[in-house]
Amino acid sequence: MHSVRFTAQSSSAGVLERDFLLGEVPGVLWSPDLAPGTAPLVLMGHGGGLHKKTPALAARARDAVTSWGYHVVAIDAPGHGDRPRSAADDRARADMREAMTAGDHERFKSVSIAYTTSLAERAVPEWQATLDALQRLPEIGAGAPIGYGGGISMGTAIGIPLTAVEPRIAAAIFGAGFFVHEDLLAAARQITVPIQYLVPWDDELVTRESAVELFDAFATEEKTLHANPGDHRRIRWIGLDNEFLPRHLGRAPAPSGADQA
Amino acid sequence: MHSVRFTAQSSSAGVLERDFLLGEVPGVLWSPDLAPGTAPLVLMGHGGGLHKKTPALAARARDAVTSWGYHVVAIDAPGHGDRPRSAADDRARADMREAMTAGDHERFKSVSIAYTTSLAERAVPEWQATLDALQRLPEIGAGAPIGYGGGISMGTAIGIPLTAVEPRIAAAIFGAGFFVHEDLLAAARQITVPIQYLVPWDDELVTRESAVELFDAFATEEKTLHANPGDHRRIRWIGLDNEFLPRHLGRAPAPSGADQA
Repeated sequence: MHSVRFTAQSSSAGVLERDFLLGEVPGVLWSPDLAPGTAPLVLMGHGGGLHKKTPALAARARDAVTSWGYHVVAIDAPGHGDRPRSAADDRARADMREAMTAGDHERFKSVSIAYTTSLAERAVPEWQATLDALQRLPEIGAGAPIGYGGGISMGTAIGIPLTAVEPRIAAAIFGAGFFVHEDLLAAARQITVPIQYLVPWDDELVTRESAVELFDAFATEEKTLHANPGDHRRIRWIGLDNEFLPRHLGRAPAPSGADQA
Repeated sequence: MHSVRFTAQSSSAGVLERDFLLGEVPGVLWSPDLAPGTAPLVLMGHGGGLHKKTPALAARARDAVTSWGYHVVAIDAPGHGDRPRSAADDRARADMREAMTAGDHERFKSVSIAYTTSLAERAVPEWQATLDALQRLPEIGAGAPIGYGGGISMGTAIGIPLTAVEPRIAAAIFGAGFFVHEDLLAAARQITVPIQYLVPWDDELVTRESAVELFDAFATEEKTLHANPGDHRRIRWIGLDNEFLPRHLGRAPAPSGADQA
């Protein structure tokens, strides 16, 4: 059983940012600088080809820390960010590029599904080990509520199978923007926690119908589909319910001295 | 040109509630009890068969007054609430009941569309006269931002043609739950203000496809579709962006002494 090993630390605007390694998996933990006690923990998954400190993800993480006093963790997905890529991963990515260039949508879709499924199979136990290790930190502990902060695309393709098998996750933000397949639908049918589900309404690769099919599959009744015009690469998320996470996870007392401006 | 004639007034929990008549149209205006100046105005349309003080509508109105310092107005639609019904309205309602009992969905739909279209033709000029009259009140004035607070079903079937022709409306909350037809789509294509659009995802009478077609028709890019499971009669609206109206209309200073608890 690995423990979190912190490798770097910095602080700005009330947010403590600590890089860590858990075994070979690099991660980052954003926390309130002056945490008064334990606080909820949010897991954030990054998109395909991106990494744990992608600017949009880091901005949302910092916002969750300063607004609600949360801890937020992100880890590099297998073959992403600071992690080496396997030969199979390299081959899958080359195949996807080739299929895209050739305009072969069916092949692109089948390779993308196989690659994402393989990533999720590896990422789910890594997330679970990360949760185990973080719950041993005194500022998080075993009792703090845990949410999945999601993001669209690959972050959700990993987050759905994770949430399906992980009873510690009490609420999840998911999003469309990737190919839906039967294994993912089966995982969604096991999920009963509240879901906020974001759909880029004009995705270039993924149909609305498949995004809706996934929404319908979640077993929870407390789920909201939220669609904005645009493709998932350039969508502007407006009109979201920004209180989704604090409504379900509660909020920590604001760290005194933290500047939210 | 009619003026608003106030006929009754009461006050509780910081909210002043004034019944009025504008010509023969009965309405109600909820306002901050201790209004410090002019404030935004929100129009709320009630659902089919209901009236201007339907509990859910009144609760949302009071919430907008105490949360944001708004004025909120509702009027009885033609043949609704305290208003007499024409022989044609009675016939349409009887036809709808008959078609429903007979399980004749196509007939129910065509009568419903004709009836709702007729109501909207009468209600739009009534709403415009109401706006004219309220803008002559000193606590509202000609400069205050105006929004349509909508509600699903008939409130939107009237609100869409109103917003299409009424440049004073700066943002609108609409909802599905009624039959979409070509005139309504044409009106939606003229609307360019920000839209929050609520869809009961499992409506018993109205298809998702028609609800989505209407969403796609709004000409504005700043629009959000928001779906929750359930039929429009018993849906629970969770996970909404409750800041939609204040983001677009601003907010008045909270009335001092108002108790928001």
